[in-house]
Amino acid sequence: MTDGPTHPTLPVARYGSRIEAASTLACRHALDGLLVGVGSDLRYLTGYEAMPLERLTMLVVPCGRPPALVVPRLEAPAARAGLRTHVELAAWDETGDPYGLALDVLDRERLVAGARLAVSDQLWAAHLLRLQAHPAAPGARFEPLSRVLRELRMIKDDHEIGLLRRAAGAADRVVAAIAAGRLVGRTEAHVATEVRERLIAEGHETMSFAIVGSGPNSASPHHEASDRVIRAGEPIVLDIGGTLGGYGSDITRTLWVTGGDPAQGPDERFRVLYAVLQGAQEAATLAVRPGVACEEIDAVARRRIEAEGYGERFIHRTGHGIGLDGHEEPYLVAGNAEPLAEGMAFSVEPGIYIEGEYGARIEDIVVCGPAGPIVLNEAPRELSVVDG
Amino acid sequence: MTDGPTHPTLPVARYGSRIEAASTLACRHALDGLLVGVGSDLRYLTGYEAMPLERLTMLVVPCGRPPALVVPRLEAPAARAGLRTHVELAAWDETGDPYGLALDVLDRERLVAGARLAVSDQLWAAHLLRLQAHPAAPGARFEPLSRVLRELRMIKDDHEIGLLRRAAGAADRVVAAIAAGRLVGRTEAHVATEVRERLIAEGHETMSFAIVGSGPNSASPHHEASDRVIRAGEPIVLDIGGTLGGYGSDITRTLWVTGGDPAQGPDERFRVLYAVLQGAQEAATLAVRPGVACEEIDAVARRRIEAEGYGERFIHRTGHGIGLDGHEEPYLVAGNAEPLAEGMAFSVEPGIYIEGEYGARIEDIVVCGPAGPIVLNEAPRELSVVDG
Repeated sequence: MTDGPTHPTLPVARYGSRIEAASTLACRHALDGLLVGVGSDLRYLTGYEAMPLERLTMLVVPCGRPPALVVPRLEAPAARAGLRTHVELAAWDETGDPYGLALDVLDRERLVAGARLAVSDQLWAAHLLRLQAHPAAPGARFEPLSRVLRELRMIKDDHEIGLLRRAAGAADRVVAAIAAGRLVGRTEAHVATEVRERLIAEGHETMSFAIVGSGPNSASPHHEASDRVIRAGEPIVLDIGGTLGGYGSDITRTLWVTGGDPAQGPDERFRVLYAVLQGAQEAATLAVRPGVACEEIDAVARRRIEAEGYGERFIHRTGHGIGLDGHEEPYLVAGNAEPLAEGMAFSVEPGIYIEGEYGARIEDIVVCGPAGPIVLNEAPRELSVVDG
Repeated sequence: MTDGPTHPTLPVARYGSRIEAASTLACRHALDGLLVGVGSDLRYLTGYEAMPLERLTMLVVPCGRPPALVVPRLEAPAARAGLRTHVELAAWDETGDPYGLALDVLDRERLVAGARLAVSDQLWAAHLLRLQAHPAAPGARFEPLSRVLRELRMIKDDHEIGLLRRAAGAADRVVAAIAAGRLVGRTEAHVATEVRERLIAEGHETMSFAIVGSGPNSASPHHEASDRVIRAGEPIVLDIGGTLGGYGSDITRTLWVTGGDPAQGPDERFRVLYAVLQGAQEAATLAVRPGVACEEIDAVARRRIEAEGYGERFIHRTGHGIGLDGHEEPYLVAGNAEPLAEGMAFSVEPGIYIEGEYGARIEDIVVCGPAGPIVLNEAPRELSVVDG
């Protein structure tokens, strides 16, 4: 619905291949079917973008049988227009049983015997409960679809990396514009609105979030931009993102606002804290290469921060995958032994937070290349001391 | 995050009352606990607005015990700032078990014996599956929270009706502005962008959808605004909505665009179809009063349309509730015997669609008053023949 520049669309044949690959994965995981709800999984497999609502829309991908898209009849024309690959439609009327229709796509004998089914992680619980209670699938066991589809979605192809790169470039320019503009005397919420306008102007379809944490709010990692007025002599954690061509941007930079008064620059403790953080973020990024465990990237950042005495102040994981979802697999977190592989895309974003005082975070989107990291964000990572 | 006019906020004490009422309902429905995920249920009960993500945030409201909000530790400051009523926080660390933490709020003995729990309809399936598989709650049975919380959320108080009225007024003005502006030669998507800008300018936080169905696309009820160029001599179904103060707007008007040429006016068949539709929409609206079944409002519209031979062309229910969700209970659909009650708010929106040719829909938001309908939208319902 934007008037901005159009984005390269995925070649149509690619969707068909993805559905085939998903069906193959279903068989390999001994699943009778994949039940794909509205959202990123459906967009990944078919290109069809619908709103998640109480009326069920669901792509059913069985093992060894043709897939079908269950849609409310009133949305059948919209589905036909929105699908980027051929899938049979199974339309249901307002008083029909869409759950039965979805299960009809599967092997009825296996359903009765107790099937294994995977459902999209983001499917609404109300839909899952209806499927679980359906008489056509007694004793069916359900599991999250991400366990299966992750094998496809985690590895980005060139088209996807191209879009992530464009999204990152746009976000870089927005950060630069905000850092160069007026900040002192404005509210965080006002700056967040500017972020939205600038992301849209840079070709994003949506802004997903704009964390503008000033002063003590910079110590709240997921701070909601508030009516607090930004003052000279304090930091701002700026963590912004949205989607461009469906793919996410997500960048964090920390500014220090002086109001033009050199006496209002960062104190020594903040400079030290920031230097530790920057070293940790750089070390974690440089550790990225195929075969390294996700938890090891987290550990690299954490060891550096712990060694300097800030271990208790780094209260979140080091990163998350990014693609059609803003947060997706792989997660760079203790306990995740998943080895990195070429084409994985994720954030590297350690932070240090002194509650009630201030904090800092640095975040880039990084792709695991064949021999090391490919960093998509190019905005400078040094502490940005600005007049504001 | 807007700079627009601020909206009246709910008195803080009201949230506390809502949580108490929810707890009472849990006991009355013999539920051991309500598991409230991020989204409209959580906003309704606490005012806290968070993003639905893979990290669990969940308000647990037991029967007969104090509630608690399970939050990721990195979001604890944001939760404290966002909660509009006092609730104990139970913060979990990145490698912790938030599902166990949520179940800890409940009576452990009852959990082991096989508890009955209600989960938010919009909770992600991945979260529900984790709860279902949790060793602390073997044999627990889960059901959709809307079955319980509907008793509260369906009945809007004065504050809620005030916000719905403001949202409706804003949407009315946007429809009027679009109808008065240039349309011929523009794409549907371009008009949809204008709708978004105008809704935001009118104080909406978000645009949720903008259906701009021109020519044959007017026969697709949930058409996605496309690159089709609007021409003279065709109808446009304009169905737009967003949120203002958290509450939804949703209006549909049908225009006919002449391009300034009187010869390009609506054909006789369309005029007849539209007159039938307008009569049905009016009759259904006038049938609204306490005690009338939801399905009866649907039937009133349907009977009128069927009597004129368009029964097969009215392919969706007559309406849906509206509030913090764009679609919520009560649904005006065959099979729903729920009696209307004072304070219920819903759309009344019959449509007639001739596939491949054209269609029309008229939609208002209506509140069930003590003795009849209170119609929140005031834009004229006649077929709007415009130059465009």
